[in-house]
Amino acid sequence: MKKVGIIGSTGYVGVELVRLLLNHPEVKLEAISSQSFKNQSIDSVYMNLKGITSLVCEDEDSVINKSDVIFTALPHGLSEKIALKTLEQNKLVIDLGADFRITDENIYEEWYGKKFDVADIHDFATYGLPEINKDTIKTSKIIANPGCYATSIELGLLPLVASNLISTKDIICDSKSGATGAGRGLSLSTHFTECNESLSAYKIDGHRHIGEIEEVLTSQSRDTVEICFTPHLLPINRGILSTIYTKLNNNEDLEIIHSVYKIYYENCPFVKVLDLGESANIKNIKYSNYCHISIHKDFRKDRLIIISCLDNMIKGAAGQAIQNMNIALGFEETAGLNLIPPAF
Amino acid sequence: MKKVGIIGSTGYVGVELVRLLLNHPEVKLEAISSQSFKNQSIDSVYMNLKGITSLVCEDEDSVINKSDVIFTALPHGLSEKIALKTLEQNKLVIDLGADFRITDENIYEEWYGKKFDVADIHDFATYGLPEINKDTIKTSKIIANPGCYATSIELGLLPLVASNLISTKDIICDSKSGATGAGRGLSLSTHFTECNESLSAYKIDGHRHIGEIEEVLTSQSRDTVEICFTPHLLPINRGILSTIYTKLNNNEDLEIIHSVYKIYYENCPFVKVLDLGESANIKNIKYSNYCHISIHKDFRKDRLIIISCLDNMIKGAAGQAIQNMNIALGFEETAGLNLIPPAF
Amino acid sequence: MKKVGIIGSTGYVGVELVRLLLNHPEVKLEAISSQSFKNQSIDSVYMNLKGITSLVCEDEDSVINKSDVIFTALPHGLSEKIALKTLEQNKLVIDLGADFRITDENIYEEWYGKKFDVADIHDFATYGLPEINKDTIKTSKIIANPGCYATSIELGLLPLVASNLISTKDIICDSKSGATGAGRGLSLSTHFTECNESLSAYKIDGHRHIGEIEEVLTSQSRDTVEICFTPHLLPINRGILSTIYTKLNNNEDLEIIHSVYKIYYENCPFVKVLDLGESANIKNIKYSNYCHISIHKDFRKDRLIIISCLDNMIKGAAGQAIQNMNIALGFEETAGLNLIPPAF
Amino acid sequence: MKKVGIIGSTGYVGVELVRLLLNHPEVKLEAISSQSFKNQSIDSVYMNLKGITSLVCEDEDSVINKSDVIFTALPHGLSEKIALKTLEQNKLVIDLGADFRITDENIYEEWYGKKFDVADIHDFATYGLPEINKDTIKTSKIIANPGCYATSIELGLLPLVASNLISTKDIICDSKSGATGAGRGLSLSTHFTECNESLSAYKIDGHRHIGEIEEVLTSQSRDTVEICFTPHLLPINRGILSTIYTKLNNNEDLEIIHSVYKIYYENCPFVKVLDLGESANIKNIKYSNYCHISIHKDFRKDRLIIISCLDNMIKGAAGQAIQNMNIALGFEETAGLNLIPPAF
Repeated sequence: MKKVGIIGSTGYVGVELVRLLLNHPEVKLEAISSQSFKNQSIDSVYMNLKGITSLVCEDEDSVINKSDVIFTALPHGLSEKIALKTLEQNKLVIDLGADFRITDENIYEEWYGKKFDVADIHDFATYGLPEINKDTIKTSKIIANPGCYATSIELGLLPLVASNLISTKDIICDSKSGATGAGRGLSLSTHFTECNESLSAYKIDGHRHIGEIEEVLTSQSRDTVEICFTPHLLPINRGILSTIYTKLNNNEDLEIIHSVYKIYYENCPFVKVLDLGESANIKNIKYSNYCHISIHKDFRKDRLIIISCLDNMIKGAAGQAIQNMNIALGFEETAGLNLIPPAF
Repeated sequence: MKKVGIIGSTGYVGVELVRLLLNHPEVKLEAISSQSFKNQSIDSVYMNLKGITSLVCEDEDSVINKSDVIFTALPHGLSEKIALKTLEQNKLVIDLGADFRITDENIYEEWYGKKFDVADIHDFATYGLPEINKDTIKTSKIIANPGCYATSIELGLLPLVASNLISTKDIICDSKSGATGAGRGLSLSTHFTECNESLSAYKIDGHRHIGEIEEVLTSQSRDTVEICFTPHLLPINRGILSTIYTKLNNNEDLEIIHSVYKIYYENCPFVKVLDLGESANIKNIKYSNYCHISIHKDFRKDRLIIISCLDNMIKGAAGQAIQNMNIALGFEETAGLNLIPPAF
Repeated sequence: MKKVGIIGSTGYVGVELVRLLLNHPEVKLEAISSQSFKNQSIDSVYMNLKGITSLVCEDEDSVINKSDVIFTALPHGLSEKIALKTLEQNKLVIDLGADFRITDENIYEEWYGKKFDVADIHDFATYGLPEINKDTIKTSKIIANPGCYATSIELGLLPLVASNLISTKDIICDSKSGATGAGRGLSLSTHFTECNESLSAYKIDGHRHIGEIEEVLTSQSRDTVEICFTPHLLPINRGILSTIYTKLNNNEDLEIIHSVYKIYYENCPFVKVLDLGESANIKNIKYSNYCHISIHKDFRKDRLIIISCLDNMIKGAAGQAIQNMNIALGFEETAGLNLIPPAF
Repeated sequence: MKKVGIIGSTGYVGVELVRLLLNHPEVKLEAISSQSFKNQSIDSVYMNLKGITSLVCEDEDSVINKSDVIFTALPHGLSEKIALKTLEQNKLVIDLGADFRITDENIYEEWYGKKFDVADIHDFATYGLPEINKDTIKTSKIIANPGCYATSIELGLLPLVASNLISTKDIICDSKSGATGAGRGLSLSTHFTECNESLSAYKIDGHRHIGEIEEVLTSQSRDTVEICFTPHLLPINRGILSTIYTKLNNNEDLEIIHSVYKIYYENCPFVKVLDLGESANIKNIKYSNYCHISIHKDFRKDRLIIISCLDNMIKGAAGQAIQNMNIALGFEETAGLNLIPPAF
């Protein structure tokens, strides 16, 4: 059994990794770390883990030393140094932060306001979206787990940009995310009485996932892809729904476009293309690693609307990280991820 | 004191009218009707009215006969016959249904699947959006209260189309509405456990408010306005937030566009144009007749994004109907509508 | 018109006072203060007040000097010093904190861990529950506005203890409150994702409102009243529902007990005793100053169960404070409080 | 691999069984039935199962014939006839309805208004609460799965009544349940806008689970146990929290009582007795088969308060049924139930 460790285990993404890795049939969660809760057992921080695990938060080096695979769930800017160490020990790191998601250093700087700290290790990194990069994930030593919004939008658009079906400069992505996306840190916007019974947009003038999304989609397209992206904060715990508006180049039939999607995702166990007439819905993917995609035509017929839904903490974070690990380590792609979405 | 009556008082829009009209300083709620609860007192149907009113649901003719102003809150197709009667008695009817919202019978037929039943009375009808039609509202005998989505989108776009600032064929309206918009009728999609902790889009291939919105916006524009509109069901009780994506004709400065909005709504007591940098939010307008509008530029600067928020049951229905009545009867426009939105 | 001021206007209770006082027909909100937002306008702190008021937060003395009536909405321990000043200026203070709620200094010390700071001014204070103290409220210079839980439990039990109907040592109060009760201060328990879709009890071994409740009920009873009280945090914004379990002394008929309640609250405009068979429900009193009470017998018939519901921010705080002011100043008791609870 | 079937698979309990049984390592879900959706595939009824199973709803006899173990998730009154058939085929039936929960026919009649239809098969039935009946569950042919409220209250009280620690006539159970407890059937009380942001008690004069709870607790006690029970409807999807108020016979120390609980549940993998000072919370057991119990003393020290939390659809229904199957078939008790509660 492979030993895995988590650096940053007491944030929301971290604890979701703990939950899923504890039930993974092929690995053993060996060590965890936390800046805020050093030397505390994780079930004293998260009472839901009471009696299930009493792993104690160690320091980062200890996690790296004890583990074959290291997951990092940290704010951006902290993972490069860790990757340097895991590379030295020839270990796999799967980074759930943003440090390795963008390949082009200039684009990275545009969105994150800084250069790479350790530029030369970026060559070892692969963008961990299994639906496009399965082969490189298998051989990579650094896997950059995609952002939650990014995953939902990229999966929604990939078949279109890859097939040259839409205008790549005319894409609107209106995304809505549950409040776990904002993490466990306290803020007025996620104070219960401020978030509940409300809805608001944020970062309307430019959210960091744009750089990542455009780079990935452009890499799969003939043309440079440009998107307009607006995230919204939903008064629910989990789930992202992205409503994506595109313009068809040649007004193809919906049936044909539907076939393109079905074929594109034929061998992707976690992407479900809904039947025509069905509509993707957050409730049907919560607590699972699935992404549901439905496609629709506007009544004027030249505009294609895509709805893409996933659980931001699973396919948008911890689940996709495990999917990447499964591929990298040669396990069944779905190992530990047989999470059937509950009906309610 | 003017006497007012409500036909269809036990639906969600009807009972909201009851609540607001009972506190109106210039009118007396004289009579109400209901198909489902005939001869029952409304406080036996709605326990929140316990000890506040014991008005009993009468039949429609009785309401018409007793009232100077009649509000109709009915499914579409039922208000024309009532308007025929109110016209005969030379009384004002304010219709919160869809029968009179669309002027062009062909457009009406396209969206509602039928011709007008009583076509010749439509000449007496005015579209009751006070921000554009105050003068005709004053003299009309039939006021067509706008749809909830329609109000939020029209108020968001009017300054732009009136000033020829945007491309009128490139408008995306992504709207999200609370569940009161679906009314009191039971359905699986508004069953608590299906709606809670979820989000979904519906009527993606064409919602009826499109016809109304396009006709109204076109009437205020040099060009024909065409919109793409997708409504979503939010797991909250009240409120609509519309995120509207437009393309600027000449990439004007945001400050200038902001001035255009401020001037356009200068004399509109219920439309608040937020300062640049602020973002409209459902929580700030709930339980009030206000519409908050914020404007934003995408990071690429050629796209203008408008956020328009209102309470679907008040500015989107009962409150706007009372605002129309106030104008028509020469009251203060804000009479009975001094509803300060609560902070929570 | 009387001038009123609020000390502590930017907490949740404070801003609810702002909202209600701005619409009060007999008073003018003249000045407000805030420790956290000194010199800022309140509509910059609370966007729901945008365009409605631009009152600026001054210091406390300024509020006292400018106002005829001063509302204090502060953590306990801060109001006595203010009351000293208002007494010197012969002005009325209505304290929404806990400093004057308990008459007996020993009981106060037991629950609040300290003696009175200015013991001799407590003689001027009245417990502001209008349903029992209307006469003393009229002549008092310090009104201690009751706690939210306390109001719901006291109103539920008063007719019983006053009529010697129940065993005063056998009272269980299981209360559930919306999250506004915890205020605007950030904490993990009111972080959206921790509070949402959950329920928990807190302060099970003794909540401070017990001292207040027992003293008030004992004052209206032949015997010393002792209660067991457990508060719970509900994932909703507003409302308290208290389920109160009592033992009847002589197993009186429910009809008789119901009559006792009806008579007891005959002249109380904000307490509604529901009909037998009806059950009090938070949704029917939200956003109003009403308290709904329903009474029930357990199937074994010797136990009486009372359900008492109110809006914690209105009848449990700001609304009751205004009701007290109305009585003290000789206004109509319901002035400014004609808040019909919305159906949703 | 054992073959299992579900009769009544499209209600909320049924579909939760489907979800959990599909992932069970020792059994194969062979057949399902549904009255409402005959001949339809379950993933057309529940979109969350899209691409996961396409089991088609057959008739009841077919399910019985194809399965070794039959789960029935039906309204009360329908399971006796099915049990007659499974007994004839010498198969195990696990009934999630109420038909076999109560042993005493008179008590059954008191609460369900009818006699047993097939009285003589009741001797073959065992009450399936594994924490007390593990041995009889192993040999039984009919397992009566406990009610959701009943499980939470019984697990909360069993150590006390078994140890004669409390007065058995002085027990108050104030329970709060999420809306899945009301099932998928549409009703006004579970209409989103009526249930959301509200709380109400129901069946205050006697809920059917009382008969079951009292019979079970009495069977484990020296004295007849009588409870007062009030259920409330919470605006959340899942979870029950019961706050239970008891009177200690001899005012034992909390530490001693805590030890009694720890010992009582020593070998029960799904019951977690929290440490003193901790408080059970719905969020910590959601989506798992755990029951969390915390014990507390009132500040007056003679009253013991127990908080018992579980997921009404899992430990309160489908999970417990599978736990019963595991015991009856000799599997690991936790097989298929390694559901770690998510942190959010």
